[in-house]
Amino acid sequence: MYRTNNCGELNLSNVGQEVTLAGWVQKARKMGGMVFIDLRDRFGITQLVFEEDTNAELCEKASKVGREYVLQVKGIVNERTNKNKNIPTGDIEIIVSELNILNASEVPPFTIEDETDGGDDLRMKYRYLDLRRAKVRKNLELRHQMAFETRRYLNDNGFLEIETPVLIGSTPEGARDFVVPSRMNPGEFYALPQSPQTFKQLLMVSGMDRYFQIVKCFRDEDLRADRQPEFTQIDCEMSFVEQEDVIQMFEGLSKHLFKTIKGIDLADMPRMTWHDAMKYYGSDKPDTRFDMKFVELMDVLKGCGFSVFDSAEYIGGICAKGAATYTRKQIDALTDFVKRPQIGAKGMVYARIEADGNVKSSVDKFYTQEKLQELKSAMNAEPGDLILILSGDNANKTRKQLCELRLEVARQLGLMKTNEYSCLWVVDFPLLEWDDETQRFYAMHHPFTAPKPEDIPLLDTDPGKVRANAYDMVINGVEVGGGSIRIHDSKLQQKMFEILGFTPEKANEQFGFLMNAFKYGAPPHGGLAYGLDRYVSLFAELDSIRDCIAFPKNNAGRDVMMGSPSRLDQAQLDELQIKLDLKE
Amino acid sequence: MYRTNNCGELNLSNVGQEVTLAGWVQKARKMGGMVFIDLRDRFGITQLVFEEDTNAELCEKASKVGREYVLQVKGIVNERTNKNKNIPTGDIEIIVSELNILNASEVPPFTIEDETDGGDDLRMKYRYLDLRRAKVRKNLELRHQMAFETRRYLNDNGFLEIETPVLIGSTPEGARDFVVPSRMNPGEFYALPQSPQTFKQLLMVSGMDRYFQIVKCFRDEDLRADRQPEFTQIDCEMSFVEQEDVIQMFEGLSKHLFKTIKGIDLADMPRMTWHDAMKYYGSDKPDTRFDMKFVELMDVLKGCGFSVFDSAEYIGGICAKGAATYTRKQIDALTDFVKRPQIGAKGMVYARIEADGNVKSSVDKFYTQEKLQELKSAMNAEPGDLILILSGDNANKTRKQLCELRLEVARQLGLMKTNEYSCLWVVDFPLLEWDDETQRFYAMHHPFTAPKPEDIPLLDTDPGKVRANAYDMVINGVEVGGGSIRIHDSKLQQKMFEILGFTPEKANEQFGFLMNAFKYGAPPHGGLAYGLDRYVSLFAELDSIRDCIAFPKNNAGRDVMMGSPSRLDQAQLDELQIKLDLKE
Repeated sequence: MYRTNNCGELNLSNVGQEVTLAGWVQKARKMGGMVFIDLRDRFGITQLVFEEDTNAELCEKASKVGREYVLQVKGIVNERTNKNKNIPTGDIEIIVSELNILNASEVPPFTIEDETDGGDDLRMKYRYLDLRRAKVRKNLELRHQMAFETRRYLNDNGFLEIETPVLIGSTPEGARDFVVPSRMNPGEFYALPQSPQTFKQLLMVSGMDRYFQIVKCFRDEDLRADRQPEFTQIDCEMSFVEQEDVIQMFEGLSKHLFKTIKGIDLADMPRMTWHDAMKYYGSDKPDTRFDMKFVELMDVLKGCGFSVFDSAEYIGGICAKGAATYTRKQIDALTDFVKRPQIGAKGMVYARIEADGNVKSSVDKFYTQEKLQELKSAMNAEPGDLILILSGDNANKTRKQLCELRLEVARQLGLMKTNEYSCLWVVDFPLLEWDDETQRFYAMHHPFTAPKPEDIPLLDTDPGKVRANAYDMVINGVEVGGGSIRIHDSKLQQKMFEILGFTPEKANEQFGFLMNAFKYGAPPHGGLAYGLDRYVSLFAELDSIRDCIAFPKNNAGRDVMMGSPSRLDQAQLDELQIKLDLKE
Repeated sequence: MYRTNNCGELNLSNVGQEVTLAGWVQKARKMGGMVFIDLRDRFGITQLVFEEDTNAELCEKASKVGREYVLQVKGIVNERTNKNKNIPTGDIEIIVSELNILNASEVPPFTIEDETDGGDDLRMKYRYLDLRRAKVRKNLELRHQMAFETRRYLNDNGFLEIETPVLIGSTPEGARDFVVPSRMNPGEFYALPQSPQTFKQLLMVSGMDRYFQIVKCFRDEDLRADRQPEFTQIDCEMSFVEQEDVIQMFEGLSKHLFKTIKGIDLADMPRMTWHDAMKYYGSDKPDTRFDMKFVELMDVLKGCGFSVFDSAEYIGGICAKGAATYTRKQIDALTDFVKRPQIGAKGMVYARIEADGNVKSSVDKFYTQEKLQELKSAMNAEPGDLILILSGDNANKTRKQLCELRLEVARQLGLMKTNEYSCLWVVDFPLLEWDDETQRFYAMHHPFTAPKPEDIPLLDTDPGKVRANAYDMVINGVEVGGGSIRIHDSKLQQKMFEILGFTPEKANEQFGFLMNAFKYGAPPHGGLAYGLDRYVSLFAELDSIRDCIAFPKNNAGRDVMMGSPSRLDQAQLDELQIKLDLKE
């Protein structure tokens, strides 16, 4: 071993001991016949001291090392006169007697500090240096801890981690698969799994009872800001359970993680129906760190001569507490925000509650003060508040716009605290979604999701009303995990396929493999999957999942450090019996 | 929850309790007005009793369920009169009052028993049913436990599990990569990693200090009996360590696994140099569960007129204890064994030690009894032993043949006990291997493996003699893991590339990515990787790794259950901008 101790553990109790440390030069400085070096490793930083008086040669050698050199030093732990209260080792320093330069370093292309001068692209190209920054390293440490504690909890609860294959068959449904040509079976391809869904259901059929896996999944999508072509799921499935059992088990996992990782005693998570989530937040993943629920204003504001509202199918408002101080400019900016094509509102109406309780709105000429007082009371608004109102001819569309507005206002008002956590379950999702264009129902989750038993009769009469035994765990407006109870009754499954417009042949072609297994005694089962990357980012208070991934890809799916993907040799293509067919 | 208890936990202490169980029908039988059903789940088997006298209707219903039906029953725990001592629940039975058939089952294509009537192909096609057999399920439980305990040990020792990418760049060296066409970067491909070797070295450069990962790796090889296109490694790397540190750490992991999983207190592992392993066992992974070391017999047997030995470059023997009783037929079969083309020996000489101490050999006419007594003494043979001798014109080739003979004899003599474990480290591997055909040296491990410091001068004078800081963990003749200390000094690395015949340009093209990182302060580091599949098979006493993998592929790389790999739609190929180029 090149060291007796790491750079983060020595303190006053070690004074007088001879120690050997190894690490990187964080910084080096000369001061009055002495050289000071901050030596860094994963565990911390320790100050090294070289004294010219005692050993001029050594001091000379030390004065020549540069940033990020790798050193091994031997010396005596000494109490510092000038203590640094900011770091755990700040009470001591090492009076060095031996210095061994293990490796030199070129000057790094950016500073290895929390606040670095390196831009995004540069840091990605030199990711191995970026990872030296404590800020980034800590995310990986957190990720390790979360994965480890997840495994500990699930192991303690009788779950088996079972590896499912990465080279599988391609499925035509869902997002695009990445595919892998098979050299041994020319003309045929494997696919990389988008999730182990079918395998985990097969494992339930095989009697494994409780399965989990922390597993890489793959999706060949056009990448958005916070997507990666490969991502990691905590994938779980249980047999002989009902929705409540799954919810209890995984609420328990969240409590375990919050407790062991963040020291937070999480309260029981509230449940919200999908219907209420849409009604009050315009989203199936409401951010409940702050209130600002939607209030429907059709009764209050319709029919007073303001044609925009009079013709609307939906009018809804939010009350921004204390935001009556918003300037005209700020309000105009909000109007511009909701009118952006990504959001698509036609306009925004606002009403300020003044100190005296009077309401002043942008549509004053259409509404009496009395009517506006009615609005104020409907919105539960108080002096100093700002009411913001959107309307439109499609309720759900307008709610989504209002959702964006609510989030933007919360952001501006500092209500989105990253170190506060508001968790809930969204339940009672609709089983089916009607698509006007193709004039058919689609499964909201997937075709194996079970309807609520009490809603099964509705499958014949009003399928759109059927609620699913499906549930999402939402934290701070992020869908951290989701799942459902699966159908285990083959007759019910057949009915689902019918409703979804599958012919028996097509159902067999696409799902025959699982349907076959279900003939041999499928137990009732259900499960859930978490997105580990998102869960970690939430714990790490990150804006993007990228910084909790050791070697992420950029938005073009490229690893700029490795230079992948890349061209193949012709010989490789020949062996695979494929050729390029590039469009101009 | 569909149950109050599982099928493996009820015993006399539960008598009188009302319980609900759920599981599969293992078997059902009628007997004098009663129906008995063995109900099975992952945890065990519990006997259900239905009494005609008490509830004729229920009994009638129970008599109609078939094998592998999924049942839920409610009933009272009762002490059995006829106890079954073979199972933990054998003292009790459930007097059933309610029966709920959760799912029916078609008659399974083979019996769900440890000794099944299902052939290999059939069981693979219905793998989800095969996994219901306790024998197979236990392997997956063991695998989970081993992975979990590995993580616990490494976590306790400060290792971080860090996920490295699955979609990486293709490397021209080594085995064939599986490749993945990139739709977003037409004409370019990702590769699937054969191991995370470069990434783990980068993580050391990035200061992660101690890394591990239990990770899928991929190799597009023509599959042999015990290979899978995807396999799982326990991949580890440490910074600021020497060989001894790595060996101690991972010997500790093995001790932890043997203790926690098998209750075995493992002794310190002996070390054997590669040179001794080759000399005494003809293999770099000697099976040391039994002795039967090679004895070189050149001094003893050469020059006595037996031309085969007289012209040999190597003569070596093994002493099979107590095998003098081997019949002529058995010995002929051994001769045929070593003459098979896969082994390639020209013949075999044997010598029996008779009860009176006389030696009777197949080449008696060339050797005096005195000479044969000399042989006996060299071989340390006793009355009742059988000496088997091979010779050849290439020492290493002959040793490999003798190795196969040794293993075959041990198999026949019952010396390969699967429940006994003999572990050792093979160390001091040669750094380089000379290849006559291409007239150059090749790295025995990989080009980043560090030579022993004391052997570095030999790099200039006699590279073939240089020993590497490389080590393999061998258990029962299986290489369970292996690794090395890596070169962290760029000058030494350059020298290695020169010796391996790389031009600076070629070295840069192939390894520039890692070499670049090494410019910025690479710490001394080294590591090791275990093959998890093999490690589990060893613990599970399996012949093949296949039965410790949930969904393995067959020798053609096919998953017969899923039917993968398979053809793609033309649309998918078009989108990827590739086309098939099938040879006739």
